[in-house]
Amino acid sequence: MTVDPRITPLATSLPATVPFVGPEAQERASGIPFVARLGANENGFGPSPEALAAMQAACVEVWKYPDAESHDLRGEVARQFGVTPDNVIVGEGIDTLLGTLCRLFLSPGDIAVTSAGAYPTFNYHVAGYGARIETVPYTGDYEDPERLIARAREFGAKLIYIANPDNPMGSHHRGCVIEKMIANVPEGALLILDEAYVELAPNGTAARIATEDSRVIRLRTFSKAHGMAGARIGYGISAKPVIAAFHRVRNHFGMNRVSQIGALAALQDHPHLEKMRVLVMRSREKLAAIAEDNGLTALPSATNFVTIDCGRDGDFARRVLAELTARGIFVRMPFVAPQDRCIRVSCGPQEDMLAFAGALPAALKAAHAAS
Amino acid sequence: MTVDPRITPLATSLPATVPFVGPEAQERASGIPFVARLGANENGFGPSPEALAAMQAACVEVWKYPDAESHDLRGEVARQFGVTPDNVIVGEGIDTLLGTLCRLFLSPGDIAVTSAGAYPTFNYHVAGYGARIETVPYTGDYEDPERLIARAREFGAKLIYIANPDNPMGSHHRGCVIEKMIANVPEGALLILDEAYVELAPNGTAARIATEDSRVIRLRTFSKAHGMAGARIGYGISAKPVIAAFHRVRNHFGMNRVSQIGALAALQDHPHLEKMRVLVMRSREKLAAIAEDNGLTALPSATNFVTIDCGRDGDFARRVLAELTARGIFVRMPFVAPQDRCIRVSCGPQEDMLAFAGALPAALKAAHAAS
Repeated sequence: MTVDPRITPLATSLPATVPFVGPEAQERASGIPFVARLGANENGFGPSPEALAAMQAACVEVWKYPDAESHDLRGEVARQFGVTPDNVIVGEGIDTLLGTLCRLFLSPGDIAVTSAGAYPTFNYHVAGYGARIETVPYTGDYEDPERLIARAREFGAKLIYIANPDNPMGSHHRGCVIEKMIANVPEGALLILDEAYVELAPNGTAARIATEDSRVIRLRTFSKAHGMAGARIGYGISAKPVIAAFHRVRNHFGMNRVSQIGALAALQDHPHLEKMRVLVMRSREKLAAIAEDNGLTALPSATNFVTIDCGRDGDFARRVLAELTARGIFVRMPFVAPQDRCIRVSCGPQEDMLAFAGALPAALKAAHAAS
Repeated sequence: MTVDPRITPLATSLPATVPFVGPEAQERASGIPFVARLGANENGFGPSPEALAAMQAACVEVWKYPDAESHDLRGEVARQFGVTPDNVIVGEGIDTLLGTLCRLFLSPGDIAVTSAGAYPTFNYHVAGYGARIETVPYTGDYEDPERLIARAREFGAKLIYIANPDNPMGSHHRGCVIEKMIANVPEGALLILDEAYVELAPNGTAARIATEDSRVIRLRTFSKAHGMAGARIGYGISAKPVIAAFHRVRNHFGMNRVSQIGALAALQDHPHLEKMRVLVMRSREKLAAIAEDNGLTALPSATNFVTIDCGRDGDFARRVLAELTARGIFVRMPFVAPQDRCIRVSCGPQEDMLAFAGALPAALKAAHAAS
């Protein structure tokens, strides 16, 4: 298609790509609905019943605009983290918060550092503001804090991205490793600590961060442990000047009112979160057992997905993925070698596990046959 | 507060202001809850029962991410407007669509043209991308298409904004006036036609636009006639290259899934929209009668609000507004003279009309006493 000649040189320079093709788009392309939706690390166990009830009740008052300040939700986050509401920003999911951080911290030509094969939506937003990505490889199947810091120092990076636990590998560092990383963030850089999965990780994974430490922003979401990906809501915690910067450019009335109310209820339902940790742990064990039954190796996971080493190269894993997809199982996989020897399967209810277990043997057989 | 020294020169240059202070923030500041919420042109008649039921049902599947393509909703919009889905973009309300248009079409130093006193969130986004606003005054209480076009030509503007019907004056042009405006859009500019209120306007207000006319983008919302402001969902219709540009920078998974489903149901509930037109028309008549009972003049309205001329200057109208606010009535008013001689009151259910009618005489008396 012709590029509109009026759009800016920056926008013109961007590729017309999307970070991900969603499962609905895949279903429309193939004409076959998925039997199990295990590719986007959604949480098929669903939201807290308290959150669900709060959202359904809130639909009645959907005629009201949201509270532009997300006052009640920021207050609860502040209370739980022992910070002030001015240390908290609420946004339309981590994706939006990442986009706003790129807009605030990156001028055209600036550098952001991430791991090769880490969350691609960060890279999308970096490019979208005319900045450039520099990467370091994973070390083993772990993001490498020291190399990330060294690369940031080498290039004078403005932003550094790390996810702990990591997506797509499911690995994690102990909080103290991240704390050491924070201590080494170069002057002039901000560390983005994506803790999307941390509620499902072993205790001690979340870094302890001083309230006014401006070297880092911690990002959390309601999409994973809280089972509310469709509600598009997450939050960031950092020093007050970092949070204040958001208010200069953000879409003040952008939050969905129903999501604000549901998120508050979810955050207050501690028993449900504890239950979810158990459900996800059992599902991880189930996925590991399915992998083992098929001669594959499940990597340790601190998330609501299990990354399964298919034992050969990326081409083979891509065939396994294609064969699973053809059998109605929506899964994804890492983009970069050697991590792309794996497929990534989300945790979910028993029926999804059974569907995956049922499809995997034939998918593997077909993938081997095509080799 | 200290500005974070790492944010970009552009972000540093922006004022730390917000386009609007919301009613919840006002309530927290005053300690007094509003009795009637008539300041943000929300629709207190609420959403279609079909949409409400669809949203409440969709909450159960809020664990799923949204369809990044908003396929079903775009398809229905396309069907109703006689265009293709590739002529339609869905976004998190008109505010987000305005922000993305500014990002796509404005480089730092570029010019956008609007009317002095028109929708301030457009100006906020223009500034947010380092561009500059040039304004023309209202002519009477109407936005002036010819002067907007002339100003755009004079400054080589990249974007031109007009709302039809207009907010905050409630006035409207017939569609044919806008069609003539479109014909005169200068080369290199895009006209943003904000039709947020058009479903509530007389027939013939919506401009007829050829599907592939790339001189204009039409914006619609579910916040007004459809009573779903808290759902943050709207759409734009334009030529395919204009729509395609959005995909280069937009937050692909940014839409709320519940809102997508509710909006589709709302769009298909034609009887409810017809009923809403009647309810809003009656409420406008009621507001006009209340104004007349108090010796004030209601301006004609093609929207879900009535702009009431308080008969004196801006200082007087600001006193009336303050006195109404102190009596628990949330209303707003135009920002710019001579339109700021008015207050702007949203339509709403009978109890809100009674609350406004009850508070206005004393508010006027107090405002006069302070003069």
